[in-house]
Amino acid sequence: MTPAENAQLALLLEVAGTPKPGNVDRERDFDDLRFEHFLAGSVGAGSGLRTAEDGAPVGAAFEQAVAGMSQQRGGNTQFGALLLLVPLVRTSAESDLVSESVRAVVENTTVEDATNFYRAFDHVDVFVDDPPEDAEPLDVRRGADAVPALEDRETTLYDVMEMSAPDDGVANEWVSGFERTFWAADRLTDFEGPISARGARVYLELLSRERDTLVQKQHGRKVAESIRVRAQEALEGGGAVIEAFAESLVDDDINPGTTADITAAALFVALETGAVEV
Amino acid sequence: MTPAENAQLALLLEVAGTPKPGNVDRERDFDDLRFEHFLAGSVGAGSGLRTAEDGAPVGAAFEQAVAGMSQQRGGNTQFGALLLLVPLVRTSAESDLVSESVRAVVENTTVEDATNFYRAFDHVDVFVDDPPEDAEPLDVRRGADAVPALEDRETTLYDVMEMSAPDDGVANEWVSGFERTFWAADRLTDFEGPISARGARVYLELLSRERDTLVQKQHGRKVAESIRVRAQEALEGGGAVIEAFAESLVDDDINPGTTADITAAALFVALETGAVEV
Repeated sequence: MTPAENAQLALLLEVAGTPKPGNVDRERDFDDLRFEHFLAGSVGAGSGLRTAEDGAPVGAAFEQAVAGMSQQRGGNTQFGALLLLVPLVRTSAESDLVSESVRAVVENTTVEDATNFYRAFDHVDVFVDDPPEDAEPLDVRRGADAVPALEDRETTLYDVMEMSAPDDGVANEWVSGFERTFWAADRLTDFEGPISARGARVYLELLSRERDTLVQKQHGRKVAESIRVRAQEALEGGGAVIEAFAESLVDDDINPGTTADITAAALFVALETGAVEV
Repeated sequence: MTPAENAQLALLLEVAGTPKPGNVDRERDFDDLRFEHFLAGSVGAGSGLRTAEDGAPVGAAFEQAVAGMSQQRGGNTQFGALLLLVPLVRTSAESDLVSESVRAVVENTTVEDATNFYRAFDHVDVFVDDPPEDAEPLDVRRGADAVPALEDRETTLYDVMEMSAPDDGVANEWVSGFERTFWAADRLTDFEGPISARGARVYLELLSRERDTLVQKQHGRKVAESIRVRAQEALEGGGAVIEAFAESLVDDDINPGTTADITAAALFVALETGAVEV
Protein backbone atom coordinates (compact mmCIF):
# COMPACT_ATOMS: atom_id res chain seq x y z
CA MET A 1 0.00 0.00 0.00
CA THR A 2 1.11 3.58 -0.65
CA PRO A 3 1.32 6.09 2.22
CA ALA A 4 -1.97 7.69 1.11
CA GLU A 5 -3.66 4.28 1.02
CA ASN A 6 -2.40 3.40 4.47
CA ALA A 7 -3.69 6.73 5.75
CA GLN A 8 -7.13 6.04 4.30
CA LEU A 9 -7.05 2.54 5.80
CA ALA A 10 -6.00 3.98 9.18
CA LEU A 11 -9.08 6.24 9.16
CA LEU A 12 -11.27 3.21 8.44
CA LEU A 13 -9.62 0.97 11.03
CA GLU A 14 -9.93 3.70 13.64
CA VAL A 15 -13.67 4.07 13.22
CA ALA A 16 -14.13 0.29 12.94
CA GLY A 17 -12.48 -0.34 16.32
CA THR A 18 -14.99 -1.13 19.05
CA PRO A 19 -15.75 -0.41 21.85
CA LYS A 20 -14.30 3.10 21.59
CA PRO A 21 -16.17 4.87 24.41
CA GLY A 22 -17.66 8.21 23.36
CA ASN A 23 -16.98 7.82 19.66
CA VAL A 24 -18.81 6.43 16.66
CA ASP A 25 -17.59 2.92 16.05
CA ARG A 26 -18.49 -0.25 14.24
CA GLU A 27 -21.31 -0.90 16.72
CA ARG A 28 -22.35 2.62 17.67
CA ASP A 29 -23.98 5.38 15.64
CA PHE A 30 -25.04 8.77 16.96
CA ASP A 31 -28.26 10.35 15.67
CA ASP A 32 -26.69 12.72 13.17
CA LEU A 33 -23.19 11.31 12.95
CA ARG A 34 -23.09 7.75 11.80
CA PHE A 35 -20.54 5.11 10.90
CA GLU A 36 -21.27 5.66 7.23
CA HIS A 37 -20.37 9.36 7.46
CA PHE A 38 -16.90 8.25 8.57
CA LEU A 39 -16.71 5.79 5.66
CA ALA A 40 -17.59 8.58 3.23
CA GLY A 41 -15.16 10.95 4.98
CA SER A 42 -12.36 8.43 4.53
CA VAL A 43 -13.13 7.95 0.85
CA GLY A 44 -13.43 11.70 0.21
CA ALA A 45 -10.16 12.49 2.00
CA GLY A 46 -8.29 10.20 -0.41
CA SER A 47 -7.39 12.75 -3.06
CA GLY A 48 -5.93 15.20 -0.52
CA LEU A 49 -3.88 12.40 1.03
CA ARG A 50 -2.57 11.43 -2.40
CA THR A 51 -1.63 15.05 -3.00
CA ALA A 52 0.39 15.01 0.23
CA GLU A 53 2.08 11.81 -0.91
CA ASP A 54 2.98 13.50 -4.20
CA GLY A 55 4.78 16.24 -2.27
CA ALA A 56 2.20 19.03 -2.12
CA PRO A 57 2.64 21.52 0.73
CA VAL A 58 1.02 20.39 3.98
CA GLY A 59 -1.55 23.20 4.12
CA ALA A 60 -2.81 22.74 0.55
CA ALA A 61 -3.02 18.96 0.89
CA PHE A 62 -4.83 19.33 4.21
CA GLU A 63 -7.36 21.76 2.76
CA GLN A 64 -8.02 19.36 -0.13
CA ALA A 65 -8.40 16.41 2.23
CA VAL A 66 -10.87 18.31 4.40
CA ALA A 67 -12.86 19.49 1.39
CA GLY A 68 -13.09 15.86 0.23
CA MET A 69 -13.94 14.60 3.70
CA SER A 70 -16.81 17.06 3.91
CA GLN A 71 -18.78 15.52 1.04
CA GLN A 72 -21.20 13.84 3.44
CA ARG A 73 -23.92 15.10 5.71
CA GLY A 74 -22.51 14.07 9.09
CA GLY A 75 -20.28 17.15 9.40
CA ASN A 76 -16.79 17.01 10.87
CA THR A 77 -15.69 13.40 10.88
CA GLN A 78 -11.89 13.42 10.62
CA PHE A 79 -10.56 17.00 10.64
CA GLY A 80 -8.16 16.41 13.53
CA ALA A 81 -7.06 13.02 12.25
CA LEU A 82 -6.21 14.54 8.86
CA LEU A 83 -4.21 17.31 10.52
CA LEU A 84 -2.00 14.55 11.88
CA LEU A 85 -2.09 12.27 8.85
CA VAL A 86 -1.20 14.82 6.17
CA PRO A 87 2.27 15.68 7.56
CA LEU A 88 2.84 12.00 8.39
CA VAL A 89 2.01 10.95 4.80
CA ARG A 90 4.18 13.73 3.39
CA THR A 91 7.05 12.62 5.65
CA SER A 92 6.74 8.94 4.85
CA ALA A 93 6.67 9.63 1.11
CA GLU A 94 10.04 11.35 1.27
CA SER A 95 11.97 9.81 4.16
CA ASP A 96 11.92 7.39 7.08
CA LEU A 97 8.83 7.78 9.21
CA VAL A 98 10.40 8.74 12.53
CA SER A 99 9.78 11.54 14.98
CA GLU A 100 12.69 13.70 13.77
CA SER A 101 11.64 13.60 10.12
CA VAL A 102 8.00 14.54 10.73
CA ARG A 103 9.23 17.26 13.11
CA ALA A 104 11.26 18.71 10.23
CA VAL A 105 8.24 18.63 7.91
CA VAL A 106 5.97 20.50 10.33
CA GLU A 107 8.67 22.99 11.36
CA ASN A 108 9.16 23.87 7.71
CA THR A 109 5.54 24.83 7.15
CA THR A 110 4.98 28.34 5.82
CA VAL A 111 2.56 31.24 6.01
CA GLU A 112 0.90 29.82 2.90
CA ASP A 113 0.36 26.53 4.74
CA ALA A 114 -1.29 28.52 7.51
CA THR A 115 -3.61 30.32 5.09
CA ASN A 116 -4.68 27.00 3.55
CA PHE A 117 -5.25 25.55 7.01
CA TYR A 118 -7.58 28.46 7.77
CA ARG A 119 -9.37 27.95 4.45
CA ALA A 120 -10.10 24.37 5.50
CA PHE A 121 -12.39 25.73 8.22
CA ASP A 122 -14.67 27.07 5.49
CA HIS A 123 -15.51 23.50 4.41
CA VAL A 124 -16.79 22.13 7.69
CA ASP A 125 -17.98 23.12 11.14
CA VAL A 126 -15.19 22.30 13.61
CA PHE A 127 -15.56 22.77 17.36
CA VAL A 128 -12.98 25.27 18.61
CA ASP A 129 -12.59 27.36 21.72
CA ASP A 130 -12.33 31.17 21.91
CA PRO A 131 -8.81 32.31 21.10
CA PRO A 132 -6.76 34.38 23.59
CA GLU A 133 -7.65 38.11 23.38
CA ASP A 134 -4.59 39.23 21.40
CA ALA A 135 -5.02 36.34 18.93
CA GLU A 136 -8.59 37.19 17.97
CA PRO A 137 -7.70 38.19 14.39
CA LEU A 138 -6.31 34.64 14.05
CA ASP A 139 -9.46 32.93 15.33
CA VAL A 140 -9.72 29.87 13.09
CA ARG A 141 -13.49 30.31 12.96
CA ARG A 142 -12.85 33.30 10.72
CA GLY A 143 -11.66 30.85 8.04
CA ALA A 144 -10.26 32.58 4.95
CA ASP A 145 -11.10 35.99 6.51
CA ALA A 146 -8.13 35.55 8.82
CA VAL A 147 -5.69 35.31 5.92
CA PRO A 148 -4.62 38.99 5.88
CA ALA A 149 -3.83 38.83 9.62
CA LEU A 150 -1.76 35.69 9.09
CA GLU A 151 0.18 37.37 6.30
CA ASP A 152 0.72 40.59 8.29
CA ARG A 153 2.08 38.68 11.26
CA GLU A 154 4.01 36.18 9.08
CA THR A 155 2.42 33.34 11.01
CA THR A 156 3.34 29.87 9.72
CA LEU A 157 1.20 26.80 10.24
CA TYR A 158 3.74 25.61 12.80
CA ASP A 159 3.31 28.92 14.65
CA VAL A 160 -0.45 28.38 14.68
CA MET A 161 0.04 24.93 16.17
CA GLU A 162 2.48 26.29 18.77
CA MET A 163 -0.15 28.77 19.92
CA SER A 164 -2.80 26.04 20.16
CA ALA A 165 -0.63 23.31 21.65
CA PRO A 166 -1.31 23.98 25.34
CA ASP A 167 -5.04 23.40 24.86
CA ASP A 168 -5.17 21.12 21.84
CA GLY A 169 -3.91 17.55 21.74
CA VAL A 170 -3.57 17.50 17.95
CA ALA A 171 -1.53 20.73 17.85
CA ASN A 172 0.54 19.35 20.71
CA GLU A 173 1.54 16.40 18.53
CA TRP A 174 2.91 18.86 15.98
CA VAL A 175 5.18 20.55 18.51
CA SER A 176 6.21 17.38 20.37
CA GLY A 177 7.44 15.36 17.38
CA PHE A 178 4.21 13.32 17.39
CA GLU A 179 5.21 11.81 20.71
CA ARG A 180 1.90 10.19 21.65
CA THR A 181 1.35 9.02 18.06
CA PHE A 182 4.64 7.10 18.00
CA TRP A 183 4.06 5.77 21.52
CA ALA A 184 0.62 4.46 20.51
CA ALA A 185 1.96 2.99 17.24
CA ASP A 186 4.48 0.96 19.26
CA ARG A 187 1.80 -0.05 21.70
CA LEU A 188 -0.33 -1.48 18.84
CA THR A 189 2.30 -4.15 18.33
CA ASP A 190 1.96 -5.36 21.94
CA PHE A 191 -1.40 -6.98 21.22
CA GLU A 192 -2.66 -9.82 19.03
CA GLY A 193 -5.75 -10.03 16.85
CA PRO A 194 -7.60 -7.73 14.48
CA ILE A 195 -5.92 -4.35 14.04
CA SER A 196 -9.12 -2.41 14.63
CA ALA A 197 -9.57 -4.14 18.01
CA ARG A 198 -6.01 -3.24 18.95
CA GLY A 199 -6.80 0.32 17.93
CA ALA A 200 -9.76 0.38 20.31
CA ARG A 201 -7.54 -0.89 23.14
CA VAL A 202 -4.84 1.72 22.50
CA TYR A 203 -7.50 4.42 22.25
CA LEU A 204 -8.59 3.56 25.79
CA GLU A 205 -5.00 3.60 27.01
CA LEU A 206 -4.38 7.02 25.45
CA LEU A 207 -7.59 8.27 27.05
CA SER A 208 -6.49 6.98 30.45
CA ARG A 209 -3.13 8.74 30.27
CA GLU A 210 -4.03 12.30 29.29
CA ARG A 211 -7.13 14.45 29.35
CA ASP A 212 -8.85 14.59 25.96
CA THR A 213 -8.61 18.21 24.85
CA LEU A 214 -11.85 18.14 22.84
CA VAL A 215 -13.71 17.02 25.97
CA GLN A 216 -11.88 19.71 27.94
CA LYS A 217 -12.87 22.44 25.45
CA GLN A 218 -16.49 21.30 25.37
CA HIS A 219 -17.08 20.32 28.99
CA GLY A 220 -14.23 21.78 31.04
CA ARG A 221 -11.14 20.46 32.72
CA LYS A 222 -12.95 18.72 35.57
CA VAL A 223 -15.07 16.57 33.25
CA ALA A 224 -12.03 15.80 31.06
CA GLU A 225 -10.07 14.67 34.12
CA SER A 226 -12.94 12.48 35.33
CA ILE A 227 -13.13 10.84 31.88
CA ARG A 228 -9.42 10.13 32.07
CA VAL A 229 -9.79 8.47 35.46
CA ARG A 230 -12.81 6.48 34.32
CA ALA A 231 -10.89 5.28 31.26
CA GLN A 232 -8.24 3.97 33.65
CA GLU A 233 -10.91 2.18 35.68
CA ALA A 234 -12.43 0.77 32.48
CA LEU A 235 -9.05 -0.63 31.44
CA GLU A 236 -8.71 -2.28 34.84
CA GLY A 237 -12.31 -3.50 34.93
CA GLY A 238 -12.47 -4.77 31.33
CA GLY A 239 -15.49 -5.93 29.25
CA ALA A 240 -18.64 -4.86 31.08
CA VAL A 241 -17.02 -1.80 32.70
CA ILE A 242 -15.81 -0.60 29.30
CA GLU A 243 -19.30 -1.09 27.83
CA ALA A 244 -20.94 0.82 30.70
CA PHE A 245 -18.39 3.61 30.31
CA ALA A 246 -19.16 3.73 26.58
CA GLU A 247 -22.91 3.96 27.19
CA SER A 248 -22.54 6.71 29.76
CA LEU A 249 -20.39 8.85 27.46
CA VAL A 250 -23.00 8.57 24.71
CA ASP A 251 -25.77 9.49 27.18
CA ASP A 252 -23.82 12.54 28.34
CA ASP A 253 -22.83 13.53 24.80
CA ILE A 254 -19.13 13.40 25.63
CA ASN A 255 -16.89 12.74 22.66
CA PRO A 256 -13.13 12.24 23.21
CA GLY A 257 -12.45 13.07 19.58
CA THR A 258 -8.82 14.15 19.99
CA THR A 259 -7.91 10.75 21.39
CA ALA A 260 -9.55 9.12 18.36
CA ASP A 261 -7.51 11.41 16.07
CA ILE A 262 -4.27 10.28 17.69
CA THR A 263 -5.40 6.66 17.42
CA ALA A 264 -5.89 7.06 13.66
CA ALA A 265 -2.43 8.61 13.34
CA ALA A 266 -0.89 5.75 15.35
CA LEU A 267 -2.64 3.17 13.14
CA PHE A 268 -1.13 4.89 10.11
CA VAL A 269 2.40 4.81 11.56
CA ALA A 270 2.05 1.13 12.48
CA LEU A 271 0.73 0.20 9.01
CA GLU A 272 3.22 2.33 7.13
CA THR A 273 6.26 1.05 9.02
CA GLY A 274 5.05 -2.54 8.63
CA ALA A 275 4.69 -3.00 12.39
CA VAL A 276 1.16 -4.30 11.83
CA GLU A 277 -0.41 -5.91 8.75
CA VAL A 278 -4.06 -6.35 7.77
CA MET B 1 -17.83 12.36 -5.24
CA THR B 2 -16.30 11.02 -8.44
CA PRO B 3 -17.47 7.68 -9.90
CA ALA B 4 -14.38 5.93 -8.51
CA GLU B 5 -15.01 7.40 -5.06
CA ASN B 6 -18.64 6.32 -5.13
CA ALA B 7 -17.55 2.82 -6.11
CA GLN B 8 -15.14 2.68 -3.19
CA LEU B 9 -17.86 3.97 -0.88
CA ALA B 10 -20.31 1.38 -2.24
CA LEU B 11 -17.86 -1.40 -1.32
CA LEU B 12 -17.61 0.00 2.19
CA LEU B 13 -21.35 0.50 2.62
CA GLU B 14 -22.00 -3.02 1.39
CA VAL B 15 -19.76 -4.63 3.99
CA ALA B 16 -21.00 -2.26 6.70
CA GLY B 17 -24.64 -3.29 6.20
CA THR B 18 -25.88 -5.65 8.90
CA PRO B 19 -27.36 -8.21 9.30
CA LYS B 20 -26.30 -9.65 5.95
CA PRO B 21 -26.78 -13.38 6.52
CA GLY B 22 -23.80 -15.48 5.45
CA ASN B 23 -21.45 -12.58 4.78
CA VAL B 24 -18.94 -10.60 6.77
CA ASP B 25 -20.59 -7.44 8.00
CA ARG B 26 -20.18 -4.69 10.52
CA GLU B 27 -21.03 -7.07 13.35
CA ARG B 28 -19.72 -10.38 12.01
CA ASP B 29 -16.17 -11.56 11.28
CA PHE B 30 -15.19 -15.01 10.07
CA ASP B 31 -12.00 -16.59 11.40
CA ASP B 32 -9.78 -15.83 8.43
CA LEU B 33 -11.88 -13.26 6.63
CA ARG B 34 -12.62 -10.21 8.68
CA PHE B 35 -14.30 -6.85 8.34
CA GLU B 36 -10.90 -5.17 8.17
CA HIS B 37 -9.87 -7.28 5.16
CA PHE B 38 -12.83 -5.76 3.32
CA LEU B 39 -11.79 -2.26 4.44
CA ALA B 40 -8.28 -2.88 3.09
CA GLY B 41 -9.72 -4.42 -0.09
CA SER B 42 -11.80 -1.29 -0.69
CA VAL B 43 -8.83 1.00 -0.18
CA GLY B 44 -6.56 -1.09 -2.39
CA ALA B 45 -9.11 -1.28 -5.21
CA GLY B 46 -9.15 2.52 -5.43
CA SER B 47 -6.42 2.99 -8.01
CA GLY B 48 -7.96 0.47 -10.42
CA LEU B 49 -11.34 2.15 -10.05
CA ARG B 50 -9.77 5.53 -10.78
CA THR B 51 -8.14 4.03 -13.87
CA ALA B 52 -11.58 2.90 -15.07
CA GLU B 53 -12.91 6.40 -14.44
CA ASP B 54 -10.06 7.81 -16.53
CA GLY B 55 -11.17 5.64 -19.46
CA ALA B 56 -8.85 2.63 -19.24
CA PRO B 57 -10.15 -0.56 -20.86
CA VAL B 58 -12.38 -2.62 -18.57
CA GLY B 59 -10.03 -5.62 -18.40
CA ALA B 60 -6.92 -3.61 -17.50
CA ALA B 61 -8.75 -1.53 -14.91
CA PHE B 62 -10.27 -4.66 -13.42
CA GLU B 63 -6.91 -6.39 -13.15
CA GLN B 64 -5.45 -3.34 -11.44
CA ALA B 65 -8.38 -3.13 -9.03
CA VAL B 66 -8.04 -6.82 -8.13
CA ALA B 67 -4.27 -6.53 -7.65
CA GLY B 68 -4.88 -3.59 -5.30
CA MET B 69 -7.70 -5.37 -3.48
CA SER B 70 -5.42 -8.34 -2.84
CA GLN B 71 -2.98 -6.41 -0.65
CA GLN B 72 -4.42 -7.92 2.53
CA ARG B 73 -4.33 -11.37 4.03
CA GLY B 74 -8.03 -12.25 3.95
CA GLY B 75 -7.97 -13.42 0.32
CA ASN B 76 -10.78 -12.71 -2.09
CA THR B 77 -12.90 -9.94 -0.64
CA GLN B 78 -14.46 -8.12 -3.59
CA PHE B 79 -13.53 -9.80 -6.88
CA GLY B 80 -17.13 -10.20 -8.05
CA ALA B 81 -18.17 -6.76 -6.87
CA LEU B 82 -15.30 -5.20 -8.83
CA LEU B 83 -16.29 -7.14 -11.95
CA LEU B 84 -19.59 -5.27 -11.76
CA LEU B 85 -18.23 -1.93 -10.54
CA VAL B 86 -15.46 -1.47 -13.10
CA PRO B 87 -17.78 -1.36 -16.17
CA LEU B 88 -20.31 0.70 -14.18
CA VAL B 89 -17.63 3.27 -13.24
CA ARG B 90 -16.35 3.38 -16.80
CA THR B 91 -19.91 3.90 -18.08
CA SER B 92 -20.77 6.61 -15.59
CA ALA B 93 -17.58 8.52 -16.34
CA GLU B 94 -18.52 8.82 -20.00
CA SER B 95 -22.32 8.81 -20.21
CA ASP B 96 -25.61 8.46 -18.33
CA LEU B 97 -25.61 5.51 -16.00
CA VAL B 98 -28.46 3.48 -17.45
CA SER B 99 -28.82 -0.13 -18.52
CA GLU B 100 -28.32 0.57 -22.23
CA SER B 101 -25.07 2.47 -21.76
CA VAL B 102 -23.41 -0.11 -19.51
CA ARG B 103 -24.60 -2.79 -21.93
CA ALA B 104 -22.72 -1.00 -24.70
CA VAL B 105 -19.57 -0.80 -22.58
CA VAL B 106 -19.52 -4.52 -21.78
CA GLU B 107 -20.48 -5.56 -25.32
CA ASN B 108 -17.52 -3.57 -26.63
CA THR B 109 -14.97 -5.42 -24.53
CA THR B 110 -12.13 -7.06 -26.47
CA VAL B 111 -9.86 -10.08 -26.45
CA GLU B 112 -7.33 -7.94 -24.59
CA ASP B 113 -9.94 -7.27 -21.89
CA ALA B 114 -10.42 -11.02 -21.62
CA THR B 115 -6.69 -11.63 -21.23
CA ASN B 116 -6.45 -9.03 -18.47
CA PHE B 117 -9.47 -10.56 -16.76
CA TYR B 118 -7.68 -13.92 -16.74
CA ARG B 119 -4.54 -12.29 -15.39
CA ALA B 120 -6.57 -11.00 -12.46
CA PHE B 121 -6.98 -14.60 -11.28
CA ASP B 122 -3.23 -14.72 -10.67
CA HIS B 123 -3.58 -12.16 -7.86
CA VAL B 124 -6.10 -13.94 -5.70
CA ASP B 125 -7.75 -17.28 -5.05
CA VAL B 126 -11.32 -17.11 -6.42
CA PHE B 127 -13.79 -19.94 -6.03
CA VAL B 128 -14.88 -21.19 -9.47
CA ASP B 129 -16.51 -24.32 -10.77
CA ASP B 130 -15.11 -26.74 -13.36
CA PRO B 131 -15.62 -25.40 -16.88
CA PRO B 132 -17.60 -27.37 -19.51
CA GLU B 133 -15.38 -29.96 -21.22
CA ASP B 134 -14.83 -28.07 -24.47
CA ALA B 135 -13.97 -24.88 -22.56
CA GLU B 136 -11.19 -26.39 -20.47
CA PRO B 137 -8.41 -24.33 -22.15
CA LEU B 138 -10.38 -21.28 -20.99
CA ASP B 139 -10.63 -22.38 -17.36
CA VAL B 140 -10.14 -19.14 -15.43
CA ARG B 141 -8.08 -21.02 -12.86
CA ARG B 142 -5.35 -21.19 -15.48
CA GLY B 143 -4.92 -17.42 -15.10
CA ALA B 144 -2.45 -15.94 -17.59
CA ASP B 145 -1.75 -19.45 -18.95
CA ALA B 146 -5.11 -19.33 -20.71
CA VAL B 147 -4.15 -16.25 -22.72
CA PRO B 148 -2.98 -18.09 -25.89
CA ALA B 149 -6.27 -20.01 -26.01
CA LEU B 150 -8.23 -16.76 -25.64
CA GLU B 151 -6.26 -15.22 -28.46
CA ASP B 152 -6.62 -18.28 -30.71
CA ARG B 153 -10.35 -18.34 -30.27
CA GLU B 154 -10.72 -14.53 -30.37
CA THR B 155 -12.69 -14.66 -27.15
CA THR B 156 -13.68 -11.24 -25.80
CA LEU B 157 -14.43 -10.57 -22.14
CA TYR B 158 -18.10 -10.31 -23.07
CA ASP B 159 -17.86 -13.78 -24.67
CA VAL B 160 -16.36 -15.12 -21.43
CA MET B 161 -19.26 -13.66 -19.47
CA GLU B 162 -21.78 -15.09 -21.92
CA MET B 163 -20.33 -18.55 -21.38
CA SER B 164 -20.49 -18.15 -17.60
CA ALA B 165 -23.85 -16.40 -17.36
CA PRO B 166 -26.06 -19.48 -16.89
CA ASP B 167 -24.19 -20.44 -13.71
CA ASP B 168 -22.83 -17.16 -12.47
CA GLY B 169 -24.91 -14.28 -11.18
CA VAL B 170 -22.20 -11.69 -11.80
CA ALA B 171 -21.65 -12.76 -15.41
CA ASN B 172 -25.41 -12.79 -15.83
CA GLU B 173 -25.52 -9.08 -14.94
CA TRP B 174 -23.11 -8.42 -17.82
CA VAL B 175 -25.38 -10.09 -20.36
CA SER B 176 -28.69 -8.82 -18.94
CA GLY B 177 -27.88 -5.10 -18.92
CA PHE B 178 -27.26 -5.25 -15.16
CA GLU B 179 -30.92 -5.97 -14.60
CA ARG B 180 -30.80 -7.00 -10.95
CA THR B 181 -28.32 -4.22 -10.15
CA PHE B 182 -30.65 -1.52 -11.46
CA TRP B 183 -33.67 -3.18 -9.81
CA ALA B 184 -31.87 -3.21 -6.44
CA ALA B 185 -30.65 0.38 -6.88
CA ASP B 186 -34.27 1.50 -7.31
CA ARG B 187 -35.31 -0.60 -4.36
CA LEU B 188 -32.77 1.18 -2.11
CA THR B 189 -34.80 4.35 -2.48
CA ASP B 190 -37.92 2.68 -1.08
CA PHE B 191 -36.51 2.68 2.45
CA GLU B 192 -35.48 5.33 4.98
CA GLY B 193 -32.47 5.46 7.26
CA PRO B 194 -28.76 4.70 6.97
CA ILE B 195 -27.72 3.59 3.49
CA SER B 196 -25.83 0.57 4.77
CA ALA B 197 -28.95 -0.68 6.56
CA ARG B 198 -30.95 -0.27 3.35
CA GLY B 199 -28.23 -2.24 1.59
CA ALA B 200 -28.63 -5.09 4.07
CA ARG B 201 -32.39 -5.11 3.46
CA VAL B 202 -32.03 -5.16 -0.32
CA TYR B 203 -29.40 -7.89 -0.04
CA LEU B 204 -31.97 -10.06 1.70
CA GLU B 205 -34.58 -9.27 -0.93
CA LEU B 206 -32.18 -10.20 -3.75
CA LEU B 207 -31.34 -13.41 -1.92
CA SER B 208 -35.02 -14.29 -1.58
CA ARG B 209 -35.69 -13.78 -5.29
CA GLU B 210 -32.94 -15.81 -6.97
CA ARG B 211 -30.59 -18.58 -5.95
CA ASP B 212 -27.14 -17.28 -5.08
CA THR B 213 -24.80 -18.76 -7.69
CA LEU B 214 -21.76 -18.88 -5.39
CA VAL B 215 -23.79 -20.96 -2.92
CA GLN B 216 -24.97 -23.10 -5.84
CA LYS B 217 -21.40 -23.70 -7.06
CA GLN B 218 -20.13 -24.52 -3.58
CA HIS B 219 -23.06 -26.47 -2.13
CA GLY B 220 -25.32 -27.45 -5.02
CA ARG B 221 -28.64 -26.31 -6.36
CA LYS B 222 -30.74 -27.80 -3.60
CA VAL B 223 -28.92 -25.90 -0.85
CA ALA B 224 -29.00 -22.70 -2.90
CA GLU B 225 -32.75 -23.05 -3.35
CA SER B 226 -33.31 -23.70 0.35
CA ILE B 227 -31.29 -20.57 1.18
CA ARG B 228 -33.51 -18.60 -1.20
CA VAL B 229 -36.65 -19.85 0.52
CA ARG B 230 -35.24 -19.22 3.96
CA ALA B 231 -34.33 -15.66 2.94
CA GLN B 232 -37.97 -15.18 2.00
CA GLU B 233 -39.06 -16.51 5.39
CA ALA B 234 -36.52 -14.27 7.11
CA LEU B 235 -37.93 -11.23 5.31
CA GLU B 236 -41.42 -12.18 6.45
CA GLY B 237 -40.34 -13.07 10.00
CA GLY B 238 -38.07 -10.05 10.54
CA GLY B 239 -35.56 -9.32 13.36
CA ALA B 240 -35.01 -12.55 15.29
CA VAL B 241 -35.66 -14.80 12.29
CA ILE B 242 -33.10 -12.87 10.24
CA GLU B 243 -30.55 -13.15 13.07
CA ALA B 244 -31.14 -16.91 13.40
CA PHE B 245 -30.81 -17.31 9.62
CA ALA B 246 -27.53 -15.37 9.76
CA GLU B 247 -26.14 -17.53 12.56
CA SER B 248 -27.07 -20.76 10.77
CA LEU B 249 -25.37 -19.70 7.53
CA VAL B 250 -22.17 -18.94 9.42
CA ASP B 251 -22.35 -22.29 11.23
CA ASP B 252 -22.81 -24.11 7.90
CA ASP B 253 -20.13 -22.05 6.15
CA ILE B 254 -22.57 -20.87 3.50
CA ASN B 255 -21.64 -17.55 1.90
CA PRO B 256 -24.05 -15.93 -0.60
CA GLY B 257 -21.24 -13.85 -2.03
CA THR B 258 -22.77 -13.18 -5.44
CA THR B 259 -25.76 -11.52 -3.83
CA ALA B 260 -23.39 -9.29 -1.85
CA ASP B 261 -21.60 -8.38 -5.10
CA ILE B 262 -24.84 -7.25 -6.69
CA THR B 263 -25.72 -5.29 -3.55
CA ALA B 264 -22.44 -3.39 -3.83
CA ALA B 265 -23.13 -2.63 -7.50
CA ALA B 266 -26.64 -1.42 -6.64
CA LEU B 267 -25.27 0.85 -3.90
CA PHE B 268 -22.90 2.35 -6.47
CA VAL B 269 -25.71 3.03 -8.95
CA ALA B 270 -27.86 4.63 -6.24
CA LEU B 271 -25.00 6.84 -5.00
CA GLU B 272 -23.78 7.78 -8.45
CA THR B 273 -27.23 8.74 -9.77
CA GLY B 274 -27.94 10.72 -6.60
CA ALA B 275 -30.86 8.47 -5.65
CA VAL B 276 -29.34 8.09 -2.18
CA GLU B 277 -26.95 10.37 -0.27
CA VAL B 278 -24.69 9.66 2.70
